[in-house]
Amino acid sequence: MADINSPVEIGVTTGPIRGSRKVHVGARTGSGIRVAMREIDLEGNEPSVRVYDTSGPYTDPAARIDISAGLAPLRRDWIMARGDVEAYDGREVRPEDNGQLGPDRSGGVPQFPNVVKRPLRARAGMNVSQMHYARRGIITPEMEYVAERENLGRELAADYLRDGESWGAEIPDVITPEFVRSEVARGRAIIPSNINHPESEPMAIGRNFLVKINANIGNSAVASDVAQEVDKMVWATRWGADTIMDLSTGRNIHDTREWILRNSPVPIGTVPIYQALEKVGGIAEELTWEIFRDTLIEQAEQGVDYFTIHAGVRLPYIPLTAKRVTGIVSRGGSIMAKWCLAHHKESFLYEHFDEITEIMKAYDIAYSLGDGLRPGSIRDANDEAQFAELYTLGELTKRAWEQDVQVMIEGPGHVPMHKIKQNMEKQLQACGEAPFYTLGPLVTDIAPGYDHITSGIGAAQIGWYGTAMLCYVTPKEHLGLPDRDDVKVGVVTYKLAAHAADLAKGHPAAQVRDDALSKARFEFRWRDQFNLSLDPETAEQYHDQTLPAEGAKSAHFCSMCGPKFCSMKITQEVRDFAAKQNAGIETFVASEAEAEAGMAEMSEKFREVGNQLYVGAGDREHD
Amino acid sequence: MADINSPVEIGVTTGPIRGSRKVHVGARTGSGIRVAMREIDLEGNEPSVRVYDTSGPYTDPAARIDISAGLAPLRRDWIMARGDVEAYDGREVRPEDNGQLGPDRSGGVPQFPNVVKRPLRARAGMNVSQMHYARRGIITPEMEYVAERENLGRELAADYLRDGESWGAEIPDVITPEFVRSEVARGRAIIPSNINHPESEPMAIGRNFLVKINANIGNSAVASDVAQEVDKMVWATRWGADTIMDLSTGRNIHDTREWILRNSPVPIGTVPIYQALEKVGGIAEELTWEIFRDTLIEQAEQGVDYFTIHAGVRLPYIPLTAKRVTGIVSRGGSIMAKWCLAHHKESFLYEHFDEITEIMKAYDIAYSLGDGLRPGSIRDANDEAQFAELYTLGELTKRAWEQDVQVMIEGPGHVPMHKIKQNMEKQLQACGEAPFYTLGPLVTDIAPGYDHITSGIGAAQIGWYGTAMLCYVTPKEHLGLPDRDDVKVGVVTYKLAAHAADLAKGHPAAQVRDDALSKARFEFRWRDQFNLSLDPETAEQYHDQTLPAEGAKSAHFCSMCGPKFCSMKITQEVRDFAAKQNAGIETFVASEAEAEAGMAEMSEKFREVGNQLYVGAGDREHD
Repeated sequence: MADINSPVEIGVTTGPIRGSRKVHVGARTGSGIRVAMREIDLEGNEPSVRVYDTSGPYTDPAARIDISAGLAPLRRDWIMARGDVEAYDGREVRPEDNGQLGPDRSGGVPQFPNVVKRPLRARAGMNVSQMHYARRGIITPEMEYVAERENLGRELAADYLRDGESWGAEIPDVITPEFVRSEVARGRAIIPSNINHPESEPMAIGRNFLVKINANIGNSAVASDVAQEVDKMVWATRWGADTIMDLSTGRNIHDTREWILRNSPVPIGTVPIYQALEKVGGIAEELTWEIFRDTLIEQAEQGVDYFTIHAGVRLPYIPLTAKRVTGIVSRGGSIMAKWCLAHHKESFLYEHFDEITEIMKAYDIAYSLGDGLRPGSIRDANDEAQFAELYTLGELTKRAWEQDVQVMIEGPGHVPMHKIKQNMEKQLQACGEAPFYTLGPLVTDIAPGYDHITSGIGAAQIGWYGTAMLCYVTPKEHLGLPDRDDVKVGVVTYKLAAHAADLAKGHPAAQVRDDALSKARFEFRWRDQFNLSLDPETAEQYHDQTLPAEGAKSAHFCSMCGPKFCSMKITQEVRDFAAKQNAGIETFVASEAEAEAGMAEMSEKFREVGNQLYVGAGDREHD
Repeated sequence: MADINSPVEIGVTTGPIRGSRKVHVGARTGSGIRVAMREIDLEGNEPSVRVYDTSGPYTDPAARIDISAGLAPLRRDWIMARGDVEAYDGREVRPEDNGQLGPDRSGGVPQFPNVVKRPLRARAGMNVSQMHYARRGIITPEMEYVAERENLGRELAADYLRDGESWGAEIPDVITPEFVRSEVARGRAIIPSNINHPESEPMAIGRNFLVKINANIGNSAVASDVAQEVDKMVWATRWGADTIMDLSTGRNIHDTREWILRNSPVPIGTVPIYQALEKVGGIAEELTWEIFRDTLIEQAEQGVDYFTIHAGVRLPYIPLTAKRVTGIVSRGGSIMAKWCLAHHKESFLYEHFDEITEIMKAYDIAYSLGDGLRPGSIRDANDEAQFAELYTLGELTKRAWEQDVQVMIEGPGHVPMHKIKQNMEKQLQACGEAPFYTLGPLVTDIAPGYDHITSGIGAAQIGWYGTAMLCYVTPKEHLGLPDRDDVKVGVVTYKLAAHAADLAKGHPAAQVRDDALSKARFEFRWRDQFNLSLDPETAEQYHDQTLPAEGAKSAHFCSMCGPKFCSMKITQEVRDFAAKQNAGIETFVASEAEAEAGMAEMSEKFREVGNQLYVGAGDREHD
């Protein structure tokens, strides 16, 4: 293990994403709030395209990154200005918080240098949840930030015909701060924002907003370098993770979590029962409400934004899993099942639910009600155990809402395509439209090594049906621990699934990026194609394997068909032909003129690169 | 280029797929027909699982592979026994057939050593199409072979409750030869089987059979080794490609195609217009019906099983593409569009369609009616041009059926999720339920480098809705030429999409493999998990990156959660608990006993490997 006193390096991934710039857009309300976005500039006279940006200051060349100082507390003033919080002497950190029960106290992870000793909580009798403000008609800066962030590209899309099937969602043409407030007030969206995590950039999870994705990270078995642990979060958010769940277990989890929170621009979620279990040496039977409660306070003071709580795993439901092919696959769920069986008692999470809610509202921590009985195989999908728990989660949702605490609901898992929609419909009905947050689902069990794809298929569909956030799955799912590349592939796969869902729901701005990329493809603007894609580096690398010449990036013909088979060239002839037939149709003449200009320009480029062409084989398409 | 006289090596991929055996199952009709399948043996008393096998003799250790001799002509006797064919002096091969118009006549690819000089065709007035036999009530050996092949696993699934949403498909519990005949007779399924490709193992493409996938291959720009060209086919079929399209262009395409056909156990499709275009030096305007017709004969005599013919690209439809973002993206479609514009005449493919059909029926070549006007971007999906062509393909389908020629219909392309179903519905209605064969569709345009996934999402859905065959897309789509790894990833991705579709349609046997793999996962039979997966090598490799020890392959706990969090262990306790509550419920007691045995056995194994455990981080799932 690394020397606990070794100096901490900056070693996290920084610098702009290829082909784009960080921009800060002032809220149209004129409040002075500035929202971080990413702008992709295109060649010629093409308008640049703004995209949603989860990467935080790490992609901003103007920002100075020092992970031992942490990010600037963006929300701190907003929180203090509300005058409903107090600083107090926080809970003392104990060795067991870092899983150090034995004689060996070597940490491996140094303590964060500037731990806040006096965290914030709601003043006595106060409730600092965004839902509480929303229900009192207050539009918070967090809501304003979200509105601006979600509005992205809607002006560009002003001329779009709304098109899509939203299955009952109510996506407005323009997102106003008031719309955000009303969605949060009715529980249809949440803004996870622990007052002790002021570094986070506000974001919303809800069916009428862009579909979000979560990436899971966990501490390494042997933590040699704290920067590596922080970089897992930085790396996942760089590629588009909207929230991060820290699923660490074992050693150093308190200190690792502190480093991650202080440096995270996105909300952080955890499963507190994992740490509670560590505190009792991994023996589920020895878990107590007191130990669990103490763990909630510990993590609340650090700034965790949402807690996965498996309060729906009730004693009477456990036997319902006995006949399953894969029993209980949720770790949190199985821990609670074991506790219930050992004591033959109802779950203490269920019994103490309202007390948990009391804690959540004092810090504005959102519930992620865990689906501890979700199916772990196609055979077990949509069974009695799963839905019995879901209805209990619905009951708990209403109880949390009585205290104005934000809630989302976790969902499966492994579900064949024809059973996916039923999951969404039952969840909406049982949980009063609280945001649904699903893991995939995987639509088949026969492709380990490709479960980012088997689950991406299910995720795109359930996202279309109304799921608000999709928990990613990496290629290593069911087999091993993901490395850096696996995390990137998982995040990009889920970004494309979430975007496909936004398109199908008829999100007014979603298609702007598709159209810009397709137009770049038609006009052989290779660099624009790369820069507009979710993973510009991989796109360019694949292109260069066939066509390395720099000139080829503006080549008039692509590598797949070669000049004889260039359908794009022929399309221009079609346009000229059609123009003759349709002279006078303005819309068309316009697009023709535009196309002619584009083609002329490219012919020029083409000559510049010495008419270099690559005549490739016809692998590109099926004809 | 390689010396044309160099000896041809065997250099293609051979040997069994890891963890499985080739078996030959006698048809239950007792006719003596033996159908090749792959059997995966499992540990303990688990029944072995039989899976559909497209890999041909290359995975059979008992088979001797010599690509310069080609595969044994499995169907030859069946064809001759029908007494309706004649051998005749075939067309002479000309330099232009290999794209050798210029002074340089160096081939690069040696001629196949044993070219059949006297190919077969129907005797005068005869029709040798499977559809023709079917309509006359004849059950051919090809139909019998298909029935046995498709029945796979249905006995194992006998106790299954039929479950699924087939959107009007009529999938029987058991496939009989008579059912195959009736499906072919009504045009709802095809068995591509050119009488000059007797090496192929009969397979069916139809909505009431397993969903199939196609892989595209193309000749290398510089063909240095003919074995490499053949191995592209061998490699794709090894991983599950049901048919192969040879999209080669340029040099050596006649000789390369001969090598591929003589060694292919699956049907081969081509786009004859590509070769015709080569014969006129790539100038579309100079294409003539005579040159095209001559190319059809050339390829018919070689044994091509289906032709993509873009006869639906009619002159009046071409202007409909003028306002598109991406115009015409089908290469065949754009060639015909160019010809129509240049001559200002109706397509010669449309004008001579019945003559083309005359040729097809003399060799039993199936139509793959090309969608030359398919959308090339999300913006262009489901537009007027696309559907105008589709209705013409419906008209042509009926004309082909008048001569008992088999037909399938090609489909898009790029379609957002909410517009996919309409494609299937219109195709079924317009084309009289002729099999649909789609390319993806891609559900978003923003992820170049990941288009096997963006298209796999659409493919799984349209396969569920009723598409009979899915044309694969590799990660290099739109960027470059796929290498060996890309082809494998593309094929595996499409196999899992096709399987997900079979599951959702309620195919009676599809879930057998999912259940076997899930049970192996629950019982920590790692090797069984690997062997049952679509890509055993990748699954094991990913597992070993985290847990290399050989002993770990039978470890009691998986690498993701470690012992404290093992939900499988807890599930056993749940079963014991439930058993007490439900004593007497046979089904349950049975599964309990079974599980107890399994767990006892594993505890034993576990001790054997010295209780080695790996306590990993919680990256596996979201809780």
